Amino acid sequence: MSSSWGNLIKLSIFGESHGTAIGVVLDGLPSGMPIDMDALLAFMDRRRPGKARFATSRKETDHPHILSGYYRGQTTGTPLAIVIQNGDTHSSDYAQMEHIARPAHADYTGYLRYHGAQDPRGGGHFSGRLTAPLVAAGGIALQILQKNQIFVGAHIASVGDRNDLSFDPVNLDAESLLAPGKKFFPVVDDMAGEKMQELIESCRMSQDSVGGVVECGVVGFPAGVGSPIFDGLENRIASLMFGIPAVKGLEFGAGFDAARHFASQMNDPFCVENGQIRTTTNHHGGILGGISSGMPIILRVAFKPTPSISRPQNTVDFKAMEATQLSIQGRHDPCVVPRAVPCVEAAVALALLDAWMEKSV
Amino acid sequence: MSSSWGNLIKLSIFGESHGTAIGVVLDGLPSGMPIDMDALLAFMDRRRPGKARFATSRKETDHPHILSGYYRGQTTGTPLAIVIQNGDTHSSDYAQMEHIARPAHADYTGYLRYHGAQDPRGGGHFSGRLTAPLVAAGGIALQILQKNQIFVGAHIASVGDRNDLSFDPVNLDAESLLAPGKKFFPVVDDMAGEKMQELIESCRMSQDSVGGVVECGVVGFPAGVGSPIFDGLENRIASLMFGIPAVKGLEFGAGFDAARHFASQMNDPFCVENGQIRTTTNHHGGILGGISSGMPIILRVAFKPTPSISRPQNTVDFKAMEATQLSIQGRHDPCVVPRAVPCVEAAVALALLDAWMEKSV
Amino acid sequence: MSSSWGNLIKLSIFGESHGTAIGVVLDGLPSGMPIDMDALLAFMDRRRPGKARFATSRKETDHPHILSGYYRGQTTGTPLAIVIQNGDTHSSDYAQMEHIARPAHADYTGYLRYHGAQDPRGGGHFSGRLTAPLVAAGGIALQILQKNQIFVGAHIASVGDRNDLSFDPVNLDAESLLAPGKKFFPVVDDMAGEKMQELIESCRMSQDSVGGVVECGVVGFPAGVGSPIFDGLENRIASLMFGIPAVKGLEFGAGFDAARHFASQMNDPFCVENGQIRTTTNHHGGILGGISSGMPIILRVAFKPTPSISRPQNTVDFKAMEATQLSIQGRHDPCVVPRAVPCVEAAVALALLDAWMEKSV
Amino acid sequence: MSSSWGNLIKLSIFGESHGTAIGVVLDGLPSGMPIDMDALLAFMDRRRPGKARFATSRKETDHPHILSGYYRGQTTGTPLAIVIQNGDTHSSDYAQMEHIARPAHADYTGYLRYHGAQDPRGGGHFSGRLTAPLVAAGGIALQILQKNQIFVGAHIASVGDRNDLSFDPVNLDAESLLAPGKKFFPVVDDMAGEKMQELIESCRMSQDSVGGVVECGVVGFPAGVGSPIFDGLENRIASLMFGIPAVKGLEFGAGFDAARHFASQMNDPFCVENGQIRTTTNHHGGILGGISSGMPIILRVAFKPTPSISRPQNTVDFKAMEATQLSIQGRHDPCVVPRAVPCVEAAVALALLDAWMEKSV
Repeated sequence: MSSSWGNLIKLSIFGESHGTAIGVVLDGLPSGMPIDMDALLAFMDRRRPGKARFATSRKETDHPHILSGYYRGQTTGTPLAIVIQNGDTHSSDYAQMEHIARPAHADYTGYLRYHGAQDPRGGGHFSGRLTAPLVAAGGIALQILQKNQIFVGAHIASVGDRNDLSFDPVNLDAESLLAPGKKFFPVVDDMAGEKMQELIESCRMSQDSVGGVVECGVVGFPAGVGSPIFDGLENRIASLMFGIPAVKGLEFGAGFDAARHFASQMNDPFCVENGQIRTTTNHHGGILGGISSGMPIILRVAFKPTPSISRPQNTVDFKAMEATQLSIQGRHDPCVVPRAVPCVEAAVALALLDAWMEKSV
Repeated sequence: MSSSWGNLIKLSIFGESHGTAIGVVLDGLPSGMPIDMDALLAFMDRRRPGKARFATSRKETDHPHILSGYYRGQTTGTPLAIVIQNGDTHSSDYAQMEHIARPAHADYTGYLRYHGAQDPRGGGHFSGRLTAPLVAAGGIALQILQKNQIFVGAHIASVGDRNDLSFDPVNLDAESLLAPGKKFFPVVDDMAGEKMQELIESCRMSQDSVGGVVECGVVGFPAGVGSPIFDGLENRIASLMFGIPAVKGLEFGAGFDAARHFASQMNDPFCVENGQIRTTTNHHGGILGGISSGMPIILRVAFKPTPSISRPQNTVDFKAMEATQLSIQGRHDPCVVPRAVPCVEAAVALALLDAWMEKSV
Repeated sequence: MSSSWGNLIKLSIFGESHGTAIGVVLDGLPSGMPIDMDALLAFMDRRRPGKARFATSRKETDHPHILSGYYRGQTTGTPLAIVIQNGDTHSSDYAQMEHIARPAHADYTGYLRYHGAQDPRGGGHFSGRLTAPLVAAGGIALQILQKNQIFVGAHIASVGDRNDLSFDPVNLDAESLLAPGKKFFPVVDDMAGEKMQELIESCRMSQDSVGGVVECGVVGFPAGVGSPIFDGLENRIASLMFGIPAVKGLEFGAGFDAARHFASQMNDPFCVENGQIRTTTNHHGGILGGISSGMPIILRVAFKPTPSISRPQNTVDFKAMEATQLSIQGRHDPCVVPRAVPCVEAAVALALLDAWMEKSV
Repeated sequence: MSSSWGNLIKLSIFGESHGTAIGVVLDGLPSGMPIDMDALLAFMDRRRPGKARFATSRKETDHPHILSGYYRGQTTGTPLAIVIQNGDTHSSDYAQMEHIARPAHADYTGYLRYHGAQDPRGGGHFSGRLTAPLVAAGGIALQILQKNQIFVGAHIASVGDRNDLSFDPVNLDAESLLAPGKKFFPVVDDMAGEKMQELIESCRMSQDSVGGVVECGVVGFPAGVGSPIFDGLENRIASLMFGIPAVKGLEFGAGFDAARHFASQMNDPFCVENGQIRTTTNHHGGILGGISSGMPIILRVAFKPTPSISRPQNTVDFKAMEATQLSIQGRHDPCVVPRAVPCVEAAVALALLDAWMEKSV
């Protein structure tokens, strides 16, 4: 019911943070698509914790074992299943708090939803670790899109009050789009990145965490793909994006800023350039009526600060129904945003691949 | 593919702005639910154009004819179909511009998507008029929720740079929640509303339009409803909300503002109050891990300015592939936000009813 | 939940036998497909009651009003809604038996399912009349397939113990396939048809009814379309076919007869004929592993005898929970099979169109 | 697209016969349901090849590894993933025939569908081995139903022309229903079973195989569950059942036999017995209008003879497009029907659990 998604491509994610394994089944992929395993591993590595000082020190190997749907280096077209073994879990860190609601976590709501039968260790199925199979699936989607000259890239737009430069929504090209993803800290402007990293480090020092925004762009996506009303590109992207833990907001093109302006400022004039129809500005973010316009697709995703902090917090024991205090032990990110960048790319790639496969229909 | 939605409730919207009729089929409603037709008409009236000086003067009767699924004043449980006849259309207003892309409209993308076979009159299936069946369906969902002491209400949070007061996310009650919807201009603070109306009127004078934000709240929704990953309450609400034309952004709880803060500020401490678990603040917007926490659900929706303005605009004839200028004739809203308020309520009510019906599973 | 269907094409059927209207929304049709309205009416006419002495004398005009999705004589690609007004209903015929279970009807099960809120008049949503929108939708699917040289046709294979000749599963061509549908009584062998009509007439005389089998064939359907496991052509056809009231069985190719034979008899040898791969026999019915083989698709559908007969029958009042007797008044078919022929064609056409639209993916 | 299924329960099956592993994700199970692993293994064992002389001698361990959704001996309610490793594969047996179409197999259609990229070894995703995850998932569904006093059981109704006794459709009880499944050869009448086994053995001797029919019954399923039109119990069962390889026909209650009779013979009279509504006969097979009547559910499934036989067969090389001859080496069942019995039970259990979970909605 909850962890499956899609029209032409069906995505079914499973697993718990401290269970045997996590994984994903991707049904409906086109057949005969080569998968570059090194590129896939490199993409997944961008989400992996423990690679830097601003991330949790938990070591996940996160190696994706493809069990099916892949033969002679290509997709077969039948369901592609990926399993990632769990390991290096310290379940005892969590045992003490089975009935203690970590603030801003899903411990309490998950307990109600599953009548106490859920796996509470490390957040169980609600854990951020469940983005690993999403990123694995999205990494494959990205390769298929890329083979068709469609490129998806993202960067950290802000951490707390520190902002990166934005993508140029009109003249964005594949090179600028993919540049941040190749960096250790994925930003457009490295100076801005330095200031963000300082803020993250100061959060670590003060046992706190900070939120941020990821901006994602897509170039090369053909015009005329998508659908009106409930199957628009925005709807599809949104229905996946809010599946990433900590996402609290999503906007396309000018987004919330468009709400503060006038049509005379926001209406993007169409023009003909080199025999192609484009717009001279791109406040619409490449999508009109749920359908791609041929301009770069631009969206921004708001992430709340990671709720796991080691400062003492007031909360309740929801079984005993009494107040208590909590200091979360264990290894936690002072900022989830750097690792969220490939998650956003993965979600966008899957949504667009699903829509794109309908284009020939 | 595009205009159907839902898990337990299936929603199928059809129609074009200047066709014979528009409508909706709602499949999967619980049986034996009385529908108060006067209340439904009053709710739909809030979306109706022509009721005020800041709305288009096009007169739509918008009377919903229930063709099926309704017997002896109650839902039967079998599909409920609603048809709304079209009328008072001036198709000739649009005939001249069949191949002229109105900026920020879906004329061009729709033409590509449907290979020129779409009905271009008045925006066809992309028209804001298609929110009438959404509001009719949502009005029925609202009544079913209300009978179960779940209340959904919204107000204009801002128009351009003029802001209303916000709902109190912690102590919101049904009375404050529903108060704006009973007003001619649905705001919390009438003084703020006056300033918004002045801005809208000045837009009309200058042949322009302005965007705005709608804030929606829900009280009485039981804790523990929803699902993780792709079927969370946010995902479901989002997948419907981006089906409303002109929506460019959506945030829950603190939303984009959460991205600018620290966990020590954003983590809502749990507490026990009168034997119930609550949080002392509500930055999470009543949803954790896709599942309701029992706190009021709070979300905000950004609407771009109505793109139809009568000022001359630069654009292209996409068939001739050449530049042209356009002055949109006809009757248009200088601000769509007042009429969008019941649309947002309708989308939220449908998404929550769908999720709520699973709660007993 | 119950009356919606499909992958690329979404079908949503609504209405009750004695309500205002019945209809269907078809979402996801290809755009720019001309619809021949005369052909559609002629196709629907084949299902219409009252056209012959072996059918109910109830006069339904059954005129399909297209409300949307159809412009300038073509599909637009946006949802196509069809409404058929009800009329000539004698609801008083049914009023007396609201709580009396007509044997072999869904009165009792529908009452339980909808907790007594269903519309019981004339069977409500369970009525055979609900096949009219199915046939309307299927008639459009047939035209789209036909334009692509795919032909679907059916005939009465048997009525009671009287059998028609079978289609030739190996050499079936469009002409032989479509011939029965052009006759007043749709059989291959008119002599056999005479005997069937005699049996039906004797049923009318004895206030009884009789069952039968419809055989359906498809020629021109390209090889390689469909999918394994749950989305095979058989699964899709079955999921629609069992939606036709009175269907109790379905078989493909040799079907139940295959279960009585040996592989050495049933395995169809492949051969190359005129540069095309075919099989020399066709016990597989044109489908292997859920995917079309390029041979004619052959299936048979078993219909139970119409349960409405005017003989006195023993039954219960399920509200009073006591035994009673019932004589069903009104106008009823002594054999539903002649009118079922276009219903079977419609179901097959919709299932195959849905699958065929994926072929280019 | 093809290997996912369900409304409240989503089923996603993956794997190829000779790949790394096969498996299934079951999303939407109720939480807190204990799973008896011994019972599950015993159920899966009934499908396992190699346990008897009439089955292939390939040894599959078929041990289901639960990777997620299972904690402290209970379902968590989050997706339950099962992986079954492959092993003991002799891929070289198949290598020679990559482009040689085994008659009545999906080699040729699968090749077309996936443009040659499918895994052809052992039939790949089309292999009967893919019923192992179906049976694992169905075994869990069976246990959940059984805990609610709903019992599903099946037996071999016929092999070739040798018939077993039928279940008593009116007075079937759990004991008689489950008795065949406890036997080495699952029939009602062991004498009939002996004759079937002789026929199977003679097929083995003559390098041939034979088809058969499985009859399945359900008792204890509450009345009033299901839906009209496309989501009826028949539709749901059918959409799963045709996912089992070799299934060519399906009938409910009197099925095809109903088509040869009169309403006066087939209409089941309702009666009141011990304060419960029942029917005195059960030609409707426990389902009316897609909804359960409270009577035993009865259905029959036709299986064609296993197509893999070692006799020489005429066929084609579909790449070279030329005629050839084929003798299938390897280990094959002379009759798939004994092992198909738990597959049928699994499919019925999954379909009914999905419907049953909606009953409280």
